[in-house]
Amino acid sequence: MRNLAQTCVFMLLLTACASVAPPPTTTRTIAQIMETIPASDWAPLDPEMTLYMELPAGRVIIALAPAYAPNHVANIRALAREGYFDGAAIVRVQENYVAQWSRTAESPREIRTARATLPAEFDRAITPDLPFVRLPDRDTYADEVGFSGDFPMARDPRTRRTWLTHCYGMVGAGRDVGADTGGGTELYVNIGQSPRNLDLNVTLVGRVVQGMELITVLPRGTGDLGFYLTPGERTPIRAMRVAADVPPAERTNLQTLRTDSASFAELIAARRNRRDEWYLHPAGAIGLCNAPLPVRAAPR
Amino acid sequence: MRNLAQTCVFMLLLTACASVAPPPTTTRTIAQIMETIPASDWAPLDPEMTLYMELPAGRVIIALAPAYAPNHVANIRALAREGYFDGAAIVRVQENYVAQWSRTAESPREIRTARATLPAEFDRAITPDLPFVRLPDRDTYADEVGFSGDFPMARDPRTRRTWLTHCYGMVGAGRDVGADTGGGTELYVNIGQSPRNLDLNVTLVGRVVQGMELITVLPRGTGDLGFYLTPGERTPIRAMRVAADVPPAERTNLQTLRTDSASFAELIAARRNRRDEWYLHPAGAIGLCNAPLPVRAAPR
Repeated sequence: MRNLAQTCVFMLLLTACASVAPPPTTTRTIAQIMETIPASDWAPLDPEMTLYMELPAGRVIIALAPAYAPNHVANIRALAREGYFDGAAIVRVQENYVAQWSRTAESPREIRTARATLPAEFDRAITPDLPFVRLPDRDTYADEVGFSGDFPMARDPRTRRTWLTHCYGMVGAGRDVGADTGGGTELYVNIGQSPRNLDLNVTLVGRVVQGMELITVLPRGTGDLGFYLTPGERTPIRAMRVAADVPPAERTNLQTLRTDSASFAELIAARRNRRDEWYLHPAGAIGLCNAPLPVRAAPR
Repeated sequence: MRNLAQTCVFMLLLTACASVAPPPTTTRTIAQIMETIPASDWAPLDPEMTLYMELPAGRVIIALAPAYAPNHVANIRALAREGYFDGAAIVRVQENYVAQWSRTAESPREIRTARATLPAEFDRAITPDLPFVRLPDRDTYADEVGFSGDFPMARDPRTRRTWLTHCYGMVGAGRDVGADTGGGTELYVNIGQSPRNLDLNVTLVGRVVQGMELITVLPRGTGDLGFYLTPGERTPIRAMRVAADVPPAERTNLQTLRTDSASFAELIAARRNRRDEWYLHPAGAIGLCNAPLPVRAAPR
């Protein structure tokens, strides 16, 4: 990314940043903060931008990221709406890396209205309307990291570009060698140490906000890259639906904590320096992919 | 850890570091490097410092870290040698966090020769005999990170202290609220995004070098902290043995790539900037817990 000389230039620039506000602090524990979050700091998931993936073990819920991958998100919704993923399968689970799903040779299905491939949406321009809640600590892979809405992301203030980051639970559109060979017909989710080296190499389309534990327990495939060697090892996907198309009584109504809320800022402060009695050495920092992104069932 | 003023001081210090050598580079891919590693760059695990944990699904192999936790490692070996863990169980699996094992109320066992608790070994002094292979990129949680033998670690050049880090697969000694309440009778392994906020809070004792996929697929517990609510949900541990005590014909003879070898340095360089055709945007950096630590079966 940069050689040493460039690093030192960058450090000098940062040294001039003394007007940046210090990160917030708190004396409350995480449990205390969670107890008093005002209702206005929680936001419902948009049913039009939420996917339900129905596995034999239950429902996996994915929040889509149209601000970062508008064309892929539109295409994945179109694929879901034409039933493309109904009868697909989880075909690959690679230990400490990804789980991936798609149609299979044994159960192919034609695409009717959606697109098979799309131009890459690896990054986008920084614009004033795009939320950005910055984390205060240094990151190995990017100069600025934080959250935009429900998603972990990074930005480069020099190029004015921003991109979603490969944190645990993030969902991406698998592709072949060419940048424009993805599109959403194959999707994967990060299930181990966040593979941040994939950032800017794949179009990320959203995040699993509920049901990771239904995916992470699946047997690892014994073929190359964790692909299952036989069709019988795969996990069938009964259906994948846009939440808005599911009858209201069958929906899972979740709320996420707004990352631009005071509660979230305090939660991050409490995680950077934990006050819980058990913690003897407060970390003094928090990694992008270690930050909590609370989700709850909507109160009735 | 530090406020903004301190950060800027630290940045200024780093700016003066122009004599540090740039990280090595390579034009070879990871596959190409792996094909030509000389035998001398592989080192066998020491059977006296290796544990075999026998689960119903197979053998989990743990390399112990006596250089960092000498008393805990000695105690865990003593516990294993008196059969303390035979008939113990994995009692807790918390999604994206840890799996933990211990004796249970239903199957207690007295400690005979080992110790129930030990003083903490959260960190140790930097000494000239302790290997240190530094990674070139910045880390969120520590000023210097890299490897010492088979283990990811961090150091603070100002305090001259060093400690093992909570990367995926690292094994620690669970404790209660007091620092000196651990000792090795309860052990855990990190199974998700590396919880680096635990660094310097727990004594890390080693790393799973084979068999993570036997642990990560276990059902997540539905109680608080991922504890199983009923004994029947637990995974029994048939036995935990020091490898040296296992008949040679029943051992799993593994070798790890020496982190102080030229092959490892080239591998890190290749992972920082991947040359594989699929990668369109080389990361230019590598996180401590993203670094590969290759393991292979010893050639016959």
